Amino acid sequence: MKIPSVKGTRDFYPSVMAVRNFIVDGWKAASNRSGFEEYDGPVFEHLTMYQVKSGQEIVEQLFHFTDRGGRELAIRPEITPTLARMVNQQINALARPIKWFSVPRLCRAERPQKGRLREFFQWNVDIIDVDDPRADAEVIFTALDYLQSTGLTAADIQARISSRRLLAALLQSIGIDGSKLEPLYALLDKKSKLPCEAFDEMLAKAVSDKDQAARIRSLMEVQSPDDIPQVIRMEEPAKAALEELKKLFLLLDLMGIGDFCRFDMGIVRGLAYYTGMVFEVHAVSGDLRAICGGGRFDNLLRDFGGPAIAATGMGMGDCVLEILLREKGLLSDTLPTRKLDYYICCLEEGLMSGAIALTATLRRLGFSADCVYKTAGLGKQLKLASAAHTAQSIIFGQEMTKENRLILKDMQSGDQRSILYNQFLSDLTS
Amino acid sequence: MKIPSVKGTRDFYPSVMAVRNFIVDGWKAASNRSGFEEYDGPVFEHLTMYQVKSGQEIVEQLFHFTDRGGRELAIRPEITPTLARMVNQQINALARPIKWFSVPRLCRAERPQKGRLREFFQWNVDIIDVDDPRADAEVIFTALDYLQSTGLTAADIQARISSRRLLAALLQSIGIDGSKLEPLYALLDKKSKLPCEAFDEMLAKAVSDKDQAARIRSLMEVQSPDDIPQVIRMEEPAKAALEELKKLFLLLDLMGIGDFCRFDMGIVRGLAYYTGMVFEVHAVSGDLRAICGGGRFDNLLRDFGGPAIAATGMGMGDCVLEILLREKGLLSDTLPTRKLDYYICCLEEGLMSGAIALTATLRRLGFSADCVYKTAGLGKQLKLASAAHTAQSIIFGQEMTKENRLILKDMQSGDQRSILYNQFLSDLTS
Repeated sequence: MKIPSVKGTRDFYPSVMAVRNFIVDGWKAASNRSGFEEYDGPVFEHLTMYQVKSGQEIVEQLFHFTDRGGRELAIRPEITPTLARMVNQQINALARPIKWFSVPRLCRAERPQKGRLREFFQWNVDIIDVDDPRADAEVIFTALDYLQSTGLTAADIQARISSRRLLAALLQSIGIDGSKLEPLYALLDKKSKLPCEAFDEMLAKAVSDKDQAARIRSLMEVQSPDDIPQVIRMEEPAKAALEELKKLFLLLDLMGIGDFCRFDMGIVRGLAYYTGMVFEVHAVSGDLRAICGGGRFDNLLRDFGGPAIAATGMGMGDCVLEILLREKGLLSDTLPTRKLDYYICCLEEGLMSGAIALTATLRRLGFSADCVYKTAGLGKQLKLASAAHTAQSIIFGQEMTKENRLILKDMQSGDQRSILYNQFLSDLTS
Repeated sequence: MKIPSVKGTRDFYPSVMAVRNFIVDGWKAASNRSGFEEYDGPVFEHLTMYQVKSGQEIVEQLFHFTDRGGRELAIRPEITPTLARMVNQQINALARPIKWFSVPRLCRAERPQKGRLREFFQWNVDIIDVDDPRADAEVIFTALDYLQSTGLTAADIQARISSRRLLAALLQSIGIDGSKLEPLYALLDKKSKLPCEAFDEMLAKAVSDKDQAARIRSLMEVQSPDDIPQVIRMEEPAKAALEELKKLFLLLDLMGIGDFCRFDMGIVRGLAYYTGMVFEVHAVSGDLRAICGGGRFDNLLRDFGGPAIAATGMGMGDCVLEILLREKGLLSDTLPTRKLDYYICCLEEGLMSGAIALTATLRRLGFSADCVYKTAGLGKQLKLASAAHTAQSIIFGQEMTKENRLILKDMQSGDQRSILYNQFLSDLTS
């Protein structure tokens, strides 16, 4: 019987796994550079975890099930609710501020398409209990520091930044009711993906007052924070939100990444829980989805039954990123799937025991080593050694039988020399 | 609202994550030493994947669900069926022999207890297309090489080894029908966990012939392969199976791990798909479950619709292992959750911009660096630096204001010196 894999999932053959490791290792290195600690949660949680604040899109995409104890569970579609749960559980024991990162495997029952799969990895970086744009800037910095480390430049990618707090204040100042903000965010977030007419129609449905709708349309088109007063009169609390956003841009300049960052009123984000700064990193050209996105979520811990503690963070998936790195020639097609210090070739069956014993000895000394399974022509064996990215081949041949000597071949230079077996061993351990 | 985690799952807070990383990094290093390539599959597969050959115990423990397309899916309880599927799919493209390892996250709906959780990590090592005890020996070697690298000795752990092929030949030679072998394996596998009377009773039910049952009981008690002929007359194919097993023990000696290994007729393994060598590693003392187990499964690829290709492998979970390492004092309670090259302390609010900029510069140069969020007493800031396992602290204080000098403090020795800001920067990049 032949069973296929599930649509929208990936099989990580060693060459594919090497790409995943290349990406994940880069994420971990960038997290470490910026001083984040790694955490993780379970791959499934109670279904209700995702019905609290994740937003309708995620709720519709849940893989959920009932266990034999009758519990309603779901495979995690994001890790932020888990983060909120975990921090709340240990809030008195954890040293704050909290700077945590994670690289969870996530699942969403989406229609598979370019850059979107049903199972993917997402780098998450979060700072908790820093109620200051410093933390927002640091989250954006960490994402961009990683992206720069791959070789991407400000000509390739841009961080588009806005503020939910500012947007909320402006919308409320023109008379939009607080209870209507959440569905409006979801609509405004989709604006760039919708044809103009479709957006206008949906906006008219959401906001029946024509003047309000017109002002929202104008607001969404401002190019700079300085243009906002021409559309909507700035009052508190919008003024304070704008000041905060300007402070964020100053910090990004200070961190040396100002040229990667720009204001974009159109960045709203789909998730329901954002309360302040929101951002997305996009490829400058092409039609790829966002490479990463995030924002401030000051109410989430409270929404999950904990104290009101400020929080900000971001997530970056592996799928869109991989497409972009390939497009830009920044991802090798032939990353090594393994690397050996030694490959042991054996030309005579009678020498195989010695070859096996030496291989084990090398491994136990901490070297990576492999040994051919069957004697064969030297050329064939050296080919196997090359395929395994071997530094040096060790040849058991007639020199061994006659003089107890190994041949050592440097696979880079091709140079080879013979050495007494015992000498080789004592050189290794000295 | 407060939502708990799901029973039997773990929250990997940074200190817990450090333990997981310590274990997983060790597994990966041992895999690399022995020349294995990393692979992975999706976290869920079609439910039927696990109904083919996994054995009743695993089928009963599946977390399964139906997606919106009506597909019956299950979270993976083991990765071997995925391995068989993946290898079959690419059988003509993959260079053989195949030496692959993986560290999958697995889920089983078991009753949580000591060493058994509903979600765990399992190191898997497999060799495909080597129809020789060499491969079996290499699998056992790789497991033991890792366990030795943690500090465990032959006084702590033992590999107990037997052969399903030998057992099958012996059982058939006393008249047990081939179709009855599979349920009998499941029973014999449980023998060591059952009281004698309970086992005898169950055996009597499974094997109605009293003489056969008596001979099986005697067989299960032999201490050495040499004792088998006293219980059951050795004929082909039992003789060949015994020779193969003896060859395996010779290879284990040759690899220098003979003192870790012994024959144990009681090792049968629960999974339905084993066909040859089977083994488990157990703690010598105490009542822990097996630390790892595996065996040869020459029919599995064929059972999954592929060609008949030999295969052998093993799995080692993280839960029992962690308990044992703690019991033996081989796992630190205070593994670092992060390490910093530099921690930037700032004593005056007016110097904070400079501190932020330097932190970003250090990170972009590849150093791990963090900066205090709020100015505070130096003692408090150095405490934060220590908690983050910092090598050197950089202090922005009055020396900066007056002379543009930083204070560099070595956190190990406590020594400190002042250095011109520009000198420090040019030292870093030179």
